[in-house]
Amino acid sequence: MEVQIAVAKINKYATSESGDTLEIVERPNGGLSVVLADGQTSGRGAKVISQMVVRKVIGLLAEGVRDGAAARAASDKLYTERQGKVISTLNIASVDLHSRTIVLTRNNPASMFICINDRIDMIDEESIPLGTSRNVRPVITEIAIQLGLTVVIYTDGISHAGERRGNPMNVGEVIRSVLEDQDPSPQSLADTLLDHAVRLDEGRPSDDISVLVLKVASRGGDNVRRLTVRLPLEGPGWA
Amino acid sequence: MEVQIAVAKINKYATSESGDTLEIVERPNGGLSVVLADGQTSGRGAKVISQMVVRKVIGLLAEGVRDGAAARAASDKLYTERQGKVISTLNIASVDLHSRTIVLTRNNPASMFICINDRIDMIDEESIPLGTSRNVRPVITEIAIQLGLTVVIYTDGISHAGERRGNPMNVGEVIRSVLEDQDPSPQSLADTLLDHAVRLDEGRPSDDISVLVLKVASRGGDNVRRLTVRLPLEGPGWA
Repeated sequence: MEVQIAVAKINKYATSESGDTLEIVERPNGGLSVVLADGQTSGRGAKVISQMVVRKVIGLLAEGVRDGAAARAASDKLYTERQGKVISTLNIASVDLHSRTIVLTRNNPASMFICINDRIDMIDEESIPLGTSRNVRPVITEIAIQLGLTVVIYTDGISHAGERRGNPMNVGEVIRSVLEDQDPSPQSLADTLLDHAVRLDEGRPSDDISVLVLKVASRGGDNVRRLTVRLPLEGPGWA
Repeated sequence: MEVQIAVAKINKYATSESGDTLEIVERPNGGLSVVLADGQTSGRGAKVISQMVVRKVIGLLAEGVRDGAAARAASDKLYTERQGKVISTLNIASVDLHSRTIVLTRNNPASMFICINDRIDMIDEESIPLGTSRNVRPVITEIAIQLGLTVVIYTDGISHAGERRGNPMNVGEVIRSVLEDQDPSPQSLADTLLDHAVRLDEGRPSDDISVLVLKVASRGGDNVRRLTVRLPLEGPGWA
């Protein structure tokens, strides 16, 4: 088996900086964690917050701290610094090779999806962003690493897409239509969701959007770890 | 324009853990940095060292510390903790959107390559690993972000491939043959280099191998940032 992860990320229309931050860290006991935070508002202020949250969580995970404890620590830090006036969502998706599970930690009102073969479950249990009060608890979901598992996580740029125009996005419907294809790559699922959201916002995303897809697939031959990044250069002066 | 980054990574034969650590961090003033360390020896001990070095460097870069200063700080930390008995190589490849340059920081006897269109330059100025003494200086190379630029960085699993069998790898030759193809993707260049090294080691890599390729290409349409990861699950019990 192998784990495949894909991320697609776009800025709010006419902003040069995304308030969403996503980073990946190797877990000291094996596996890796993807950490995604969406700071309140957009642009520079939101970026500072989401980077601080991601940095705190990544630093703790790298020391072997458990995901839930890392989320609480980041929340306490944000609350202490900003007294509840600034909040941030947080999602952690961990491939834990020690427990042989995918651990999903969520402090985000936006739902997420867990798909196993034909079954598509929306996870929308109430979940509160970091920094709102003392004692913010993450919602933690743990699933055995198994063939056919696909997890879809996103920031509220997806869940609110099209709302202003009275045409909200049905995320589950889009996921179902892609998964009905023969074995779509996680990148094609992430791209389709992002593309759908941008079209509902008529080409001008009304918020930063990040989509993270994790898939457990059968081994594609070699045992080479691979990573690719594409960074479009935006703004004046770039061809 | 857009920056494309690809990494291919494989463990030394019959070891379950790579002593090489590679992580990516967003730069607070725009852009991103890829940090690659290779800890002395292999397996668990090497992993602990390379993770420590990468963690230190990433933490400082995230605070806005300059690449060279981050490398020196990691070296001082390693020297203080291990008194020169344990060393680690370090490469940092930064896309600095503020200075509009690629900044390459190197504390690694292994060479690297900078290719601009048809020109392929091997950078093999003497460079010393971290932790060898007080006052270790990185070799820093800075190049304007420009179309046609390709940078190739690797750990010594590449430069030593085939040596034991008296058939050492000519890295520049392999790069030239791939670049003669029409506009190869960075992933295909990284994969070809890794594949070539593994074949010279007769399918049993005599060291951990990591290859990092950074390419500046023309914009491929949309302004979506993308990231993909493939993590093969190795060891007993995984199908």
